[in-house]
Amino acid sequence: MKVRLLVAYDGSCFSGFARNQDVVTVAETLEEYIGAICRTPVTITGAGRTDKGVHAYGQVVSFDGPDDLDLGRLQRSLNSRGAGRLVVREVNEADSSFDARFSAIWRRYRYTIINSAVPDVTNRHTSWHVHEPLSLEAMEQACAPLIGLHDFACFCRRPKRDDGIEVSLVRSVLSAGWKRGDGDELIFEITASAFCQQMVRSIVGTLVDVGRGHLTAASMVEILRHGDRRRAGQLAPPWGLSLHEVGY
Amino acid sequence: MKVRLLVAYDGSCFSGFARNQDVVTVAETLEEYIGAICRTPVTITGAGRTDKGVHAYGQVVSFDGPDDLDLGRLQRSLNSRGAGRLVVREVNEADSSFDARFSAIWRRYRYTIINSAVPDVTNRHTSWHVHEPLSLEAMEQACAPLIGLHDFACFCRRPKRDDGIEVSLVRSVLSAGWKRGDGDELIFEITASAFCQQMVRSIVGTLVDVGRGHLTAASMVEILRHGDRRRAGQLAPPWGLSLHEVGY
Repeated sequence: MKVRLLVAYDGSCFSGFARNQDVVTVAETLEEYIGAICRTPVTITGAGRTDKGVHAYGQVVSFDGPDDLDLGRLQRSLNSRGAGRLVVREVNEADSSFDARFSAIWRRYRYTIINSAVPDVTNRHTSWHVHEPLSLEAMEQACAPLIGLHDFACFCRRPKRDDGIEVSLVRSVLSAGWKRGDGDELIFEITASAFCQQMVRSIVGTLVDVGRGHLTAASMVEILRHGDRRRAGQLAPPWGLSLHEVGY
Repeated sequence: MKVRLLVAYDGSCFSGFARNQDVVTVAETLEEYIGAICRTPVTITGAGRTDKGVHAYGQVVSFDGPDDLDLGRLQRSLNSRGAGRLVVREVNEADSSFDARFSAIWRRYRYTIINSAVPDVTNRHTSWHVHEPLSLEAMEQACAPLIGLHDFACFCRRPKRDDGIEVSLVRSVLSAGWKRGDGDELIFEITASAFCQQMVRSIVGTLVDVGRGHLTAASMVEILRHGDRRRAGQLAPPWGLSLHEVGY
């Protein structure tokens, strides 16, 4: 049976989503839990490879499980093991052709900033505190150049391939914008076909430089055109970021 | 100069408010920071002695500082050292007679429950997840017997006094009630002249037993009358609790 999970996790408890030697990752943890429940090894696929420290609210995972798998029991058992750090929000049987990664048509990330003179203790694990006043209008204007098909080399870590072939960093951004949340929250949402490594955090860091008045919307156009990471802003911290939703 | 601070902190970073041997407490940390900034040892007074793991949004602290103390610099310097774990929301010069503990006329605590089938990852550091459905109406009705002057022995840890004199656990509860928050949040607020140790967590644990249908509003009256802790519910976990506001 093809199983589809809707998963949330606290990124501070994991060294990212993807399996990696000598560190605890979301994928490894889920495979270990599911394997123990199903009494057979499983390999999972995830919609997005979140980096170390990045949270997820709407990560989607798929795997091939035994045909007699009790999905209700699977969810309860996973949530008991996850102890609030890793939560399975929904469990469904999916079409046999479903693949959490390859069937996804878009991913949406959300980044939360608390823009206030003093930090907010309550939200400190899930937001970036920026104490200088930010211009939401300027940051919103600077989103426009991001929309569409671009080479995002200026915002991404270029992965190494063993065979020496250069990896494409061309991605299609469907929407990007800011809104005010509760209290001093500023929430950035960006939706794209797919994302490159560090892309959202680098975009947010650059947009915050716009909000501070160090860069302009025109600078965004220039930065994208030159494809030079040194022109982009700082990398925003991982704990403000969450893989919010995946579209199929 | 008498200085008054409005302080928030992440309770998970401290072993409670009050100074205690061999552990890091809020009072010790604040005294160390303020002493370093003022270049002279200070002794602080706090409005409420929060237990280990309990948060504060509106703790009030007072101390005698040097007459030439720059309050803006004090706040910035404390917030820089506090690194988001300990935040000074406001700094004011107070009347020389002001004492954060003895001038306070009421304290308000807030307890947050997430009542949903699956846990909420985002709020896991600041709420208690209860998966069984709770009756908010029953929990609200069971608050009524708490209002007024009572001996809260049934809900409190009785402190030991060196001289053998029994400590009074009589307190005056001014208000107590529940409201719905965002999403699956249930928020309990209780205001009293003062609180005994573990009182709010024990009351919340008992109210949740009412919400589950294991106890009734009438049981609350019985529990209060008998003054026997064994009749009260479990102690709710500390991370759902916050010292929310103090009245003067």
